[in-house]
Amino acid sequence: MISTSIRRQFRSIVGEDWFLDTPEDLATYSYDAFLPEFKPDGVIVPQNTDQISRIMYIANREKINIIPRGAGTNICGSSVARKGGMIMAFHRLNKILEIDHESMCAVVQPGVVNAELQKEVEKKGLMYPPDPASLFVSTLGGNVALNAGGPRGVKYGVTRDYVLGLEVVLPTGDIIRTGGKTLKNVTGYDLTRLMCGSEGTLGIITEITVRLVPLPTAKATLQAVFSDVDDAAKTVSSIIASGIVPTTLELVDRVVLDVIKDYGGAEFPPEAEALLLIEVDGEPSALAAQGERIKEFCKERGAIQVDRATSNEEAEKLWQARRSAFGAVARLRPNCIVEDATVPVKRLPEMIRKIVNLAEKYRLKIGVLAHAGDGNLHPLIMTDLRDKEEMDRVDQAVEELYEAAISMGGTLSGEHGIGIAKDRFMSKEFSERTIEIMRGIKRVFDPNNILNPGSFL
Amino acid sequence: MISTSIRRQFRSIVGEDWFLDTPEDLATYSYDAFLPEFKPDGVIVPQNTDQISRIMYIANREKINIIPRGAGTNICGSSVARKGGMIMAFHRLNKILEIDHESMCAVVQPGVVNAELQKEVEKKGLMYPPDPASLFVSTLGGNVALNAGGPRGVKYGVTRDYVLGLEVVLPTGDIIRTGGKTLKNVTGYDLTRLMCGSEGTLGIITEITVRLVPLPTAKATLQAVFSDVDDAAKTVSSIIASGIVPTTLELVDRVVLDVIKDYGGAEFPPEAEALLLIEVDGEPSALAAQGERIKEFCKERGAIQVDRATSNEEAEKLWQARRSAFGAVARLRPNCIVEDATVPVKRLPEMIRKIVNLAEKYRLKIGVLAHAGDGNLHPLIMTDLRDKEEMDRVDQAVEELYEAAISMGGTLSGEHGIGIAKDRFMSKEFSERTIEIMRGIKRVFDPNNILNPGSFL
Repeated sequence: MISTSIRRQFRSIVGEDWFLDTPEDLATYSYDAFLPEFKPDGVIVPQNTDQISRIMYIANREKINIIPRGAGTNICGSSVARKGGMIMAFHRLNKILEIDHESMCAVVQPGVVNAELQKEVEKKGLMYPPDPASLFVSTLGGNVALNAGGPRGVKYGVTRDYVLGLEVVLPTGDIIRTGGKTLKNVTGYDLTRLMCGSEGTLGIITEITVRLVPLPTAKATLQAVFSDVDDAAKTVSSIIASGIVPTTLELVDRVVLDVIKDYGGAEFPPEAEALLLIEVDGEPSALAAQGERIKEFCKERGAIQVDRATSNEEAEKLWQARRSAFGAVARLRPNCIVEDATVPVKRLPEMIRKIVNLAEKYRLKIGVLAHAGDGNLHPLIMTDLRDKEEMDRVDQAVEELYEAAISMGGTLSGEHGIGIAKDRFMSKEFSERTIEIMRGIKRVFDPNNILNPGSFL
Repeated sequence: MISTSIRRQFRSIVGEDWFLDTPEDLATYSYDAFLPEFKPDGVIVPQNTDQISRIMYIANREKINIIPRGAGTNICGSSVARKGGMIMAFHRLNKILEIDHESMCAVVQPGVVNAELQKEVEKKGLMYPPDPASLFVSTLGGNVALNAGGPRGVKYGVTRDYVLGLEVVLPTGDIIRTGGKTLKNVTGYDLTRLMCGSEGTLGIITEITVRLVPLPTAKATLQAVFSDVDDAAKTVSSIIASGIVPTTLELVDRVVLDVIKDYGGAEFPPEAEALLLIEVDGEPSALAAQGERIKEFCKERGAIQVDRATSNEEAEKLWQARRSAFGAVARLRPNCIVEDATVPVKRLPEMIRKIVNLAEKYRLKIGVLAHAGDGNLHPLIMTDLRDKEEMDRVDQAVEELYEAAISMGGTLSGEHGIGIAKDRFMSKEFSERTIEIMRGIKRVFDPNNILNPGSFL
């Protein structure tokens, strides 16, 4: 618990209205998009780096846990006060400080919403590629802390690939800068990338310099329907191996398609077992040919229907099915657990078969949504958290799922993070020595273990 | 010094012929492409990970320094026994273990030569983009340890952007694995990227999984000559800001052009003050238009001559000037010091003016070669290491150069590393606290400070 005197000190740093501790406030910040609730002892909303530094200095001295939190959209529980302490929120740090067109970068505060940055840079003919599904809500600080991915990852990579430099407040209150505005930088250890995906455990990100790329001048969107999910999965790795680099290559399986049909009224042929949504972007002159090649590819590999959007509206319509998936699935059972297993692209068909087997073996309803082009699968387990017996089966299936992913050369998490959702599986992917190294790094940054101590280590 | 008994132990691990300690052997390994000489106490050439683990176990116990070394082409002195100890060489670990076309990656041993990997993957229509100038000699292990860049960096980034996973032997002898074969991976701290650019100070890289991309089907090569270096530099940032993403965008200044002319007989208009070499790659259909746009761009910004290669032979000829630069410059004075200042692209014209000023101020001959498209400049200081008075001026100029780069938002090193060449400048870029964090990380990996202890920390 935080003493009255310390609360007073925090209030004097951030201003009376920006330290929140009413029961309502604490309830609001007691969970993120991952479900379990942990009530914090307070919520602090600083306005600038200096305030954050002063807060951390006190927190470190008094050993008060601090949990940095963007929009709380992460689904691994990495922004909740699992071990008590204070949530630090960033909605007062929400400015785009600079868009440097000539150097192809932007400098932003951590509370800037992803879509807001996208919109502003697009006005200048630029693009910030990372596009997590949460982009209309989630913030850049959270995106960096979780190293967020998104559908465009196949071509453009993840958040880490766009972070050039950071300002960070260490758990001790010291302010450091890493990287800068240059694309190339090999000076000292790469603290910039070490922060990416560190889930708020190493430092508080107070400023971010991101790389921008030219906004593609055109795109082509295609949808291919298959009567066999295995054909669809194999088509994915064939497209990737063919030399085409799609912007997105999404797979939706029969389970999810059925739900979408019932929910949103989208029409698919009755024999549809899987759908691929494929987008390519680039110079208009190159796209027509690429679209045709993809169409041929899908047909040769057994697609029963391939549609190419001829307008933005049609493209939007093709995206509808993919976009409505989460909402549709969430209605089916009380809860939907989104997993994040990731495998080398070649192993995609095998992994999808494994998921189908797990659903049968453990009598569960599991659908598959996948950023298939980069081997990143999101099995959707439709369940009821209150049903203890069913949840035991879910736990077993999930464990087996990740064992399979790792045995295929994959990983526990492609883009969602570990947090408290998957920390128990860390030893499946890493040796004890590797985890010890990670814990050692944590101690270097945070000797008193006050920064998000409940997360993955 | 290493005792006879320990030498015997090392010999029994790697085999009699693979522990070298004749005066000739020690001389061979006493310098890398950076000049100062440091004679090692021995050279060990292991054959596999297990041997390396056993060597490190002994070295750690006996506190014997180990300096991992690829081909020794680095120019920052990061592979010499500055504080004594044993060089570890990797020419027995030179196999490409797997090229996985469908998952777009390859698994290699650290001693594989960069160009060898390029050649093998190109046979399959794939490309490994990082292309340091040393590519025909330098090894993948060295490339990762130094996070090597290259001319293609403008479009494709540096080595770090292609490393997916590593096997690493820690200084204590433990073997760990990081990352894997997947494009996306956010499980735990990013030890994979932390190893990139760590200059052999954190662990010994024994296996590398690299990402591959499709081999571009076509390229266009252009050369633009300017009568004003400022026009050339400004053209660079205009091209970058225009939405064109060149594969390479190199700048050569008048000083270097003059040397090339005298040396190789290449012809340039007499008023030539700078040359841009520009390459774009991609789909043939898009390239013609891009080539035209670049041509227009250069002309509008004052280019007095723009040539576009119409065949591979012509492209090769345009590259000749750029490629012969180092050789030509090296003949002019006894020594040529290659610097590696990097600035945001927008500041390129300013940085080039600064270099011209420094040459005047300190009465030095300095040419400029730049990977201009990513703001990475290589000032070439033509000098004589034996001339103490001149070297004092060189030292002052270099210090001022890096102060300028950092004040422009740049960095000490874009792609060459810090090593013993620039460790004295670290405090110009980083606060004491940041360096302390780096030292802390070093201690986590290497508590006895035996791995390349002479390098940048």
